[in-house]
Amino acid sequence: MHRTYSLRNSRAPTAQQLSSPPPPPSSTKGGRFFGKGSIAHTFRRTTAGTFGPELSRKLAQLVKMEKNWMRSMEVASNERKEIAKQLSLWGEETDDDVSDITDKLGVLIYEIAELEDQFIDKYDQYRVTIKSVRNIEASVQPSRDRKQKITDQIAALKYKEPNSPKIIVLEQELVRAEAESLVAEAQLSNITREKIKAAFNYQFDALREHSEKLALIAGYGKALLDLIDDSPVTPGETRPAYDGYDTSKQIIIDAENALSSWTLENAAVKPALTITRSANTGEEYGEDGEGVWADKTDEEINEGLEAVDLEDKKDEVVV
Amino acid sequence: MHRTYSLRNSRAPTAQQLSSPPPPPSSTKGGRFFGKGSIAHTFRRTTAGTFGPELSRKLAQLVKMEKNWMRSMEVASNERKEIAKQLSLWGEETDDDVSDITDKLGVLIYEIAELEDQFIDKYDQYRVTIKSVRNIEASVQPSRDRKQKITDQIAALKYKEPNSPKIIVLEQELVRAEAESLVAEAQLSNITREKIKAAFNYQFDALREHSEKLALIAGYGKALLDLIDDSPVTPGETRPAYDGYDTSKQIIIDAENALSSWTLENAAVKPALTITRSANTGEEYGEDGEGVWADKTDEEINEGLEAVDLEDKKDEVVV
Repeated sequence: MHRTYSLRNSRAPTAQQLSSPPPPPSSTKGGRFFGKGSIAHTFRRTTAGTFGPELSRKLAQLVKMEKNWMRSMEVASNERKEIAKQLSLWGEETDDDVSDITDKLGVLIYEIAELEDQFIDKYDQYRVTIKSVRNIEASVQPSRDRKQKITDQIAALKYKEPNSPKIIVLEQELVRAEAESLVAEAQLSNITREKIKAAFNYQFDALREHSEKLALIAGYGKALLDLIDDSPVTPGETRPAYDGYDTSKQIIIDAENALSSWTLENAAVKPALTITRSANTGEEYGEDGEGVWADKTDEEINEGLEAVDLEDKKDEVVV
Repeated sequence: MHRTYSLRNSRAPTAQQLSSPPPPPSSTKGGRFFGKGSIAHTFRRTTAGTFGPELSRKLAQLVKMEKNWMRSMEVASNERKEIAKQLSLWGEETDDDVSDITDKLGVLIYEIAELEDQFIDKYDQYRVTIKSVRNIEASVQPSRDRKQKITDQIAALKYKEPNSPKIIVLEQELVRAEAESLVAEAQLSNITREKIKAAFNYQFDALREHSEKLALIAGYGKALLDLIDDSPVTPGETRPAYDGYDTSKQIIIDAENALSSWTLENAAVKPALTITRSANTGEEYGEDGEGVWADKTDEEINEGLEAVDLEDKKDEVVV
């Protein structure tokens, strides 16, 4: 993790990173013949954001990058399905126990790939929500442009013919444009916050579900491995007959039940939060901090109580 | 999950699948202009296993497929890093609170990508172990071929000249070849089991670590989102000043601490196992089944106690 706690600053290596160097990098990294990524992905990323309103360009590019990532994950998920099938295919010609266990491991690995598929579908909901922020950004741009244009016109006219009656007309127009812009900026502020929050809540819920299910599968996979008899035999000796068919099947049934009964409420992995409520009162430690935050949110809600729905106020603001 | 509990049989849709249809498939799926996957991956997969000893072809193909998958994951991980940077870049121009939170979310998402990188490095250890099974398979093939060849020669000679003195020589050679083959097959059986078990234990441990860490990050990400003030404002109203810098920084510090102190021993997600010890004694339910299995493994170890190390027995067997 970055010691600077921000992606915008450069980061220095930590003492931990210096003292315990990471494992050797995977031998599959580097030395690639066909180039690093897909041409299509580079094309999609670089073209996004070169057109369209200035304000929404960065987010437009982000949306395209998310699409790239999802496509890559989809390829990986399909490849994992192939791996599961190949593992089962290889195992078929081996001894009974290895054959049974590799087949069952194949089932679990295939299940991981299917969960990845589902995760991509859920991730798309996040992407679509981010898209709606991009859309509001794009729609706010014209009202900003219009306000700027009228201001420029008035300045030019005041310089050329200071007594022109057109100035009064333009100034009235500017008031209207400013009112429209105020509403647009308020909409941008409200919708951006609401959607960003919804989008990432969606992404993190999906990630939590996905990763906890994967951890479950890893546990059941390890249980399956215990059924392989790896005590060495001497040449010519035959192994005791394999009798784990029922157990291995039961493990898969258990895994299936655990996955289908998983809910967000009984998630096992819980973050431990140290809440610093404010710099003045010092640090406050809560068990999980939920209560402290709930309070804070309430205060904010009270402060914002006078905030009425946008549509109702619109008429008052426009002069 | 597959109701048939095997990848080798075709599977029927379950009642659950029929009653609760899945979410809509991601809009990024389908409609691709540049083809589905990489040409390099297809090339690598299809060429593997067309050369080399017959016995090791399927596993050779599996090893290549694993490499494909790792490359795809690597691409996805790099793309996720870009996403994290772009999110932080976009947020920089927004209001204080959204700017701070998107930057911190970027740090968390970048961390996910770095964990994926580490996971790929660990997955490579699994792949290398599977490779060693492929190698022992490839090395056993010649001894099988030799035995077969001598058997064929003897049969041919017995048909053509039944009294040839060469038959005795060949038969002696066959006894030697059979002994060698016996040792080779025992080695194959022992090493395959040992390595398969080690490889998948390694993979599942890595998967468990990876997925639990991701679940942790998802939790801290959701905590960050609570800091965004999403109460709606009216046009012209200014939002209360953002004072969450300390809290958001503390959340990142908490996340960092949680990730660095995570160990396999205190893994939160635990599989619940229903152990069927044998078909005769009926089902036995254990809390986590560890004890029941430890017993079974002991029995197997006792049965295999007479099994001496291969190298010691070799001399006795060869006639």
